[in-house]
Amino acid sequence: MQFEVSRAIEVLSATPSTLRALLGNLSGDWTSSDKEEDRWESFDVVGHLIHGEETDWIPRARIILDQGENRTFVPFDRFAQFEKSKGKSLAELLDEFERLRWDNIDELHSWDLTDAQLDLEGMHPELGQVTLRQLLATWVVHDLNHVRQIATSMAKKYDGEVGVWREYLSILK
Amino acid sequence: MQFEVSRAIEVLSATPSTLRALLGNLSGDWTSSDKEEDRWESFDVVGHLIHGEETDWIPRARIILDQGENRTFVPFDRFAQFEKSKGKSLAELLDEFERLRWDNIDELHSWDLTDAQLDLEGMHPELGQVTLRQLLATWVVHDLNHVRQIATSMAKKYDGEVGVWREYLSILK
Repeated sequence: MQFEVSRAIEVLSATPSTLRALLGNLSGDWTSSDKEEDRWESFDVVGHLIHGEETDWIPRARIILDQGENRTFVPFDRFAQFEKSKGKSLAELLDEFERLRWDNIDELHSWDLTDAQLDLEGMHPELGQVTLRQLLATWVVHDLNHVRQIATSMAKKYDGEVGVWREYLSILK
Repeated sequence: MQFEVSRAIEVLSATPSTLRALLGNLSGDWTSSDKEEDRWESFDVVGHLIHGEETDWIPRARIILDQGENRTFVPFDRFAQFEKSKGKSLAELLDEFERLRWDNIDELHSWDLTDAQLDLEGMHPELGQVTLRQLLATWVVHDLNHVRQIATSMAKKYDGEVGVWREYLSILK
C-alpha cells in the first residue's frame, strides 16, 4: 500500500478513540503497575504518545517543510513520560492525547501537501536522511506499534491464568 | 494479576468499541486485501471473533458448568470466517460481533460464578484438561491477541513506506 496523506489521517484520527475504547473503562490493575519493571504499562504508553505529539511528528515535519540550513531533528526523549505523567490520571492523559492529536491533524490537513513536498528531506540525528513521506508513514506505524504494545502488556497480566492454552496464544510468547 | 470475572468482563466489554474505533472509519485498503496471502486482514479477524462468540467461549463454558458425562469441547474451526463472512461488509461484521458479545457478557454475568465453579473442568480436544477459570482468562487474552494482530496487519501495509525508521519499529519485524 502506497503512502497517501488522506489514508494516513484515517489511522491517525482513529487512535485517540481506539485508546479511549480500549482503556477508558478499565481498573488500574490493567493499565498500570506498582512493580518496578522494564515493561511499559498502558499508562506509560499514552504518556509517550503525548510527548510524540508535542515534540516529534509535527515539529519534525515543520523542520523538513521549512528547508532551513539545519534540518537535523531534535533527538526524541523516549523516556520523558516517566516524569511528565507523574500525578496525572489515565483519563487526563487520554484527554490530553486526543486534544493534541486533533490539533496536529488539523495542522497536517491545512498543509495540503504535494508529492514534491512529501519528497523533501530532513536529517534524523541517528538514522540519517529521511523524507517527509517516511516521517508521516512512521507516525502511523508508530501508533499501531503502541496499540500492539498496550494489547500485549494487558495480555501478559493473565500469563499465569490461561493454563495449557498458553501454547495457542502468540501474544504471550 | 489474578483472574476475576469482573476484571475479565472489563476487557471483554471494551473489545467491540475498540474494534469499531480502530476500524470503523477506515478505507478498505487498510482492512482487507485482494491478494491471496496467508496473513489475516482485519476483516478476517472480526469474522473469526464472531465465530468464537457463536461456537467457542460461552458454549464451552456451558459444557463445563453442566458437568455432563462428555465434557469434551467441539473442536473450534479457525478458518470458518473465510466462508461465513463472504458478501458481508466490515460494518456488518462489527455490528454482529458487538451484538453477540453483549449477549454473551449478559449470560456470563447472569451466572454469578463462584470460585468452586471457576475450578470446574472440561476437556479440550487437543490440549486436555482445562478449568472454567482458564477458559475465561483465555477469552480475554484471545481478544487482545487479535487486537494486536489487527494493528500488526495494518502496520505491515506501510512496510515499504517508513524508510530507515524500520529499524525502530518492532511491529514490522
